[in-house]
Amino acid sequence: MHYFYHPDLTQDFIELNTEESEHCIRVLRHRNGDSVRLTNGKGTACLANIINDNPKRCSLQISEFIIDELPNHNGLHLAIAPTKNINRMEWLLEKAIEIGIYKLTFLNCEHSERTHINLDRLQRLSIAALKQSQTKWLPDIAISNFSQFIDVNHDTNADKFIAWCDDKNNVQLTDFNRNNQEMILLIGPEGDFSGNEIEMARRENYKEVKLGYRRLRTETAGLYGCFIANILNFQHT
Amino acid sequence: MHYFYHPDLTQDFIELNTEESEHCIRVLRHRNGDSVRLTNGKGTACLANIINDNPKRCSLQISEFIIDELPNHNGLHLAIAPTKNINRMEWLLEKAIEIGIYKLTFLNCEHSERTHINLDRLQRLSIAALKQSQTKWLPDIAISNFSQFIDVNHDTNADKFIAWCDDKNNVQLTDFNRNNQEMILLIGPEGDFSGNEIEMARRENYKEVKLGYRRLRTETAGLYGCFIANILNFQHT
Repeated sequence: MHYFYHPDLTQDFIELNTEESEHCIRVLRHRNGDSVRLTNGKGTACLANIINDNPKRCSLQISEFIIDELPNHNGLHLAIAPTKNINRMEWLLEKAIEIGIYKLTFLNCEHSERTHINLDRLQRLSIAALKQSQTKWLPDIAISNFSQFIDVNHDTNADKFIAWCDDKNNVQLTDFNRNNQEMILLIGPEGDFSGNEIEMARRENYKEVKLGYRRLRTETAGLYGCFIANILNFQHT
Repeated sequence: MHYFYHPDLTQDFIELNTEESEHCIRVLRHRNGDSVRLTNGKGTACLANIINDNPKRCSLQISEFIIDELPNHNGLHLAIAPTKNINRMEWLLEKAIEIGIYKLTFLNCEHSERTHINLDRLQRLSIAALKQSQTKWLPDIAISNFSQFIDVNHDTNADKFIAWCDDKNNVQLTDFNRNNQEMILLIGPEGDFSGNEIEMARRENYKEVKLGYRRLRTETAGLYGCFIANILNFQHT
């Protein structure tokens, strides 16, 4: 059954925005009376019937909420320096949503090769990924400077990790039990974090970890983090 | 330092094939006396100096073998039904080589949406991925019918798993300790394995497992298997 996004499912009657209406009515050719699924991207999903198949302002009546026991997300807040090739980040975003990421922040680091991110485009892509993978969680996507990110998360209860290529460190992310619902994982640019950045993270008690025994590309490392968060989340709760 | 592929590093002097010669001399503009790295894709890597910068038949002298303690591969023999969209398989192949897969077989299943695979193209892509990720293991890539695959691996010592969407089964691949150096993981097409195929696997003692708690796309499931093989491999030896 086709799946559409609407941020607010608290009313009985809802109207899709232009983009979703077009997808539903023009592309997928749904008509009055058809039943589809909706999600608000915040853990709620429901069944709804189309009552006005207007291709610009499709409206629906909610018939039933869908209850399942799957967690909405894996609790991972991934903060990652974007790669020069933005396709690799878009790919990561799509996969991360499929796997169930909680939040995604693009970090502007000292060694970053890319500083510009088109947030609008990524948010549109994330709605497409949400619908395609039929999940119920649309992660917040943000952009932040490294130091600003560290400051903002000063008081968090999350488990905090920083992954970097330290030849002397053999502590793996998988060595940790999961203590909290949320974990933050910092992943640096191809040229890695600067010494200054690593020092800032240390002062804020980020645990230094490795992601396996190979040197992974940035986006592969991000994906590794997503999978590990799922495993730790489900195995330790 | 640039990395090139040559299947045989047992001689002091080696000559790259046309494709590798062109990449080395024409694309990357190496000249006589330059030092590069070579791998045979079977775990051996070395340094070598260019002694003839012919763009069709570049020859080199091996100067030194590179010794490290990283395992060559993660022991995973992934047998997966190819997706209709071959890009998703090419992407999986690239990532699987980066992560360190041992072998990859494309399975022709009852519900397969794609039966044709261009093996030559995938082998060329895998050499490119090997060089790009600077790993030392070029996995064997094969195509097989499901039943033929099961028969051929009848006498293997590998741990054998089949992942399929059984709502009644909650056994996770991550629940197992790794007993052997090699593990086989079967992943089916979008429409899943047929009842007949699952029965065949059961008779050959494949353990039925899940890959996390979400329904993943075929290529994401394959990648999950690659990461888990790394984790089990390193944590239990």
